[in-house]
Amino acid sequence: MLECVINLAEGRETRAVEAIVQAAAPALLDVHVDADHNRSVFTLAGPMVEDAAWSIAEAAAHLLDIRHHVGVHPWLGAIDVVPFVPLGTASLDAAIEARNRMGARLASELSVPVFFYGPERGLPEVRRRAFRDLAPDLRPTRPNPRLGASCVGARGPLVAYNVVVDASLEVAREVARELRGPAVRALAFQAGRRVQVSMNLIDPRVVGPAQVVDRIASRVSVRVCELVGLVPRWVLDDIPAERWAELDLGPDRTIEVRLLARGLPLPA
Amino acid sequence: MLECVINLAEGRETRAVEAIVQAAAPALLDVHVDADHNRSVFTLAGPMVEDAAWSIAEAAAHLLDIRHHVGVHPWLGAIDVVPFVPLGTASLDAAIEARNRMGARLASELSVPVFFYGPERGLPEVRRRAFRDLAPDLRPTRPNPRLGASCVGARGPLVAYNVVVDASLEVAREVARELRGPAVRALAFQAGRRVQVSMNLIDPRVVGPAQVVDRIASRVSVRVCELVGLVPRWVLDDIPAERWAELDLGPDRTIEVRLLARGLPLPA
Repeated sequence: MLECVINLAEGRETRAVEAIVQAAAPALLDVHVDADHNRSVFTLAGPMVEDAAWSIAEAAAHLLDIRHHVGVHPWLGAIDVVPFVPLGTASLDAAIEARNRMGARLASELSVPVFFYGPERGLPEVRRRAFRDLAPDLRPTRPNPRLGASCVGARGPLVAYNVVVDASLEVAREVARELRGPAVRALAFQAGRRVQVSMNLIDPRVVGPAQVVDRIASRVSVRVCELVGLVPRWVLDDIPAERWAELDLGPDRTIEVRLLARGLPLPA
Repeated sequence: MLECVINLAEGRETRAVEAIVQAAAPALLDVHVDADHNRSVFTLAGPMVEDAAWSIAEAAAHLLDIRHHVGVHPWLGAIDVVPFVPLGTASLDAAIEARNRMGARLASELSVPVFFYGPERGLPEVRRRAFRDLAPDLRPTRPNPRLGASCVGARGPLVAYNVVVDASLEVAREVARELRGPAVRALAFQAGRRVQVSMNLIDPRVVGPAQVVDRIASRVSVRVCELVGLVPRWVLDDIPAERWAELDLGPDRTIEVRLLARGLPLPA
């Protein structure tokens, strides 16, 4: 089974989000809308995952226009980031195949330039180099005027995690810099009135939510933790239940519970 | 269309929550598991709402045992509170009929004493008087040893809302007392390491999340806001998008988006 986690550059237009949600219904496990970042994250899985991912892309292409987009989070396009993730015994090769199919359709049917990421090259590198010294993997060669470009990837499971801190943006940037490492990507943002350390825990068996929160709390006061999307159940098993609420975790935030809630089978 | 919001006295056993979620799948819009309160809240709606509510009750009766329950939130039983709520043009009478059917099955098939609440009598009154000077509406007359009793109700839409504050439990209790009124029910709890003002906004057109948070913030420092379950879309329409993230609101937290995400029709 594959998971697909589509990040769109839209988090404020309720009606647009509703239409996109409807398009993704058969495989939709979670929607995370962040009005501060003006982004939304759709978590898909199950047998219909590729169809649902494509339906979201089509609906987003119809509804969104980056010429109106304002937001602090780095982004390349309306259908900004589309990673495929192997669940259970699925292989990264299967995720790469799904990635390649999705990229081909985005480029040919929606005229959106596509940058691939995956084992060969990570997302931060694509963001840094796109249209500078890196040409899209699939043409067009210039950003689509309404939709920009898309990063389509294949990767292992990661935990997308925000920690709001009582600190200046400068101090938060320092904290983010100290956190960065082979298992942690971290940036700091001003999100509305709040300062946030925004992370991807790319090897959550090595550094999980509890560890980064403890590290941040040793430097600044932690206001609130926010999980973006879902986690595999084993991430919870590593953390005492007493800490789940504080860490914005719980059985309701696992891929497994959401699959069961949709009447879908668990990954083999 | 009716909504049903089942509150169970279990929020720590991942496997039990998973089994219950699976039972509710056809009508499940949201699961909110709170390990601190050791409770979980299942939001159901759509044509299968009564069947799904009963499936949850059956699964809970099979899996839960209040003799093992520990938690700060007031509770009467494993299947603690089961309100039915009219959505769209549905009438409170339709909700009362669903309530009466559900109560009858809980009492007769699971031997759980049932207290009704609704227009005639509110939930706080039932909680205060149950088994003291108030006998169950449906027998048995004594609590079921494993499952306790259930409060089954019919009510209008409300917003269940927690605000974690930087204050002592004593001060939080004072704040809760000051908030209480015809549109607001409020209690204060120690939840894990955090002190929380836990509210039901029973007339959210009069007093909504933004208003209570502003009132609390004028008295003590607000650490984080937490919506329990979902809100009707119109609750968002009353609040500027810039405040959604801070208030734990967003299009993804509306009944409408969750119905669409399940491929269910919106309420008439």
